[in-house]
Amino acid sequence: MASSLWLHPVPLLLASGSAARATMLRGAGLPLSVEPARIDERVAESQLLRQGDASPDSIALGLARAKALDVSGRNPKAIVLGADQTLSCDGMAFHKPADRQAALSQILLLSGRAHELHSAYALVNDGKVLAQGAASARLVMRPLSACFVERYLDMAGAAALASVGGYQLESLGVQLFESVDGDHFTILGLPLLMVLASLRQLDVLA
Amino acid sequence: MASSLWLHPVPLLLASGSAARATMLRGAGLPLSVEPARIDERVAESQLLRQGDASPDSIALGLARAKALDVSGRNPKAIVLGADQTLSCDGMAFHKPADRQAALSQILLLSGRAHELHSAYALVNDGKVLAQGAASARLVMRPLSACFVERYLDMAGAAALASVGGYQLESLGVQLFESVDGDHFTILGLPLLMVLASLRQLDVLA
Repeated sequence: MASSLWLHPVPLLLASGSAARATMLRGAGLPLSVEPARIDERVAESQLLRQGDASPDSIALGLARAKALDVSGRNPKAIVLGADQTLSCDGMAFHKPADRQAALSQILLLSGRAHELHSAYALVNDGKVLAQGAASARLVMRPLSACFVERYLDMAGAAALASVGGYQLESLGVQLFESVDGDHFTILGLPLLMVLASLRQLDVLA
Repeated sequence: MASSLWLHPVPLLLASGSAARATMLRGAGLPLSVEPARIDERVAESQLLRQGDASPDSIALGLARAKALDVSGRNPKAIVLGADQTLSCDGMAFHKPADRQAALSQILLLSGRAHELHSAYALVNDGKVLAQGAASARLVMRPLSACFVERYLDMAGAAALASVGGYQLESLGVQLFESVDGDHFTILGLPLLMVLASLRQLDVLA
């Protein structure tokens, strides 16, 4: 019953290991398989940077495409969904913090300022890009003391290292914020409303 | 550890039985007790309407206050959080659908149009309102056929009757929407960022 909106013979194939993305898609009632792409994101990113367009949403879009194309090569029958998220603040790009120290400095850099999250997707079938898009959200962090951020990191544990900004807005991360502008799906790493609209246009979703 | 941001001797007391609200507050790291208010919401609402200000956010605010005051009466030491959500569409107010048929007609009324969700909160201690506020979100539903809505209701089951709009945006309900403007906490029924800011101003949250 839960798959009755999906009209393609093979489940949607998510080319990302993100639990948040899989949860959103399954929540929306889509039958889903998961096969994370095997690309080196930092290498793919530096290739995109060399090609010229270095805006954070173009980077996210390029990485979403690269992931989907990689997985499509091994799964030609599936509709493959690639996704990526980048974070920018005053022209600086941020990546998932490698360790607690990196998370601390990153959050202190974002503290008291606005930053943008850019979430992109690409839908690929048999090596061809069928649809793609990106959306952004704007978040303002409260001014935070190093002491408060240390306490936050103690409480958040490994979750602080699992996302690009060092926070998860749907749990303890909300303590860091003053305001949030943009849809929650985009903040979680996938512009789900756009993805669903594309799947309907491709006639694979009722 | 998880309660180390909370500075009041007694856990926050939520005067609402909503699982979504409790999940948000616990996710934010707050120690929480739950005691749903024992008021008749429709009676309280008609009293508010008779008092004059019938805007959907005033109604939500009045009900949030009424719930918190009711529970505070039995728990004078606790900081009590009351919350309410109303839905308005072209001047019409909506309530939680009573059954499947009501959910069907309600969703068909909202189909192809924009509606607003108004979420309000009140913080009460020992019978005194310490803080209150409301926020709104605007959602646009896709044009939906009765047949599609029937299928959605088959798939959503009881969840469709658990919220004021007949949908849960964080799961299957996303299939009904074209666009969403407003923060996710407000959509889920509690303007969490405002609540946290109030708790900090009251010096009970670090």
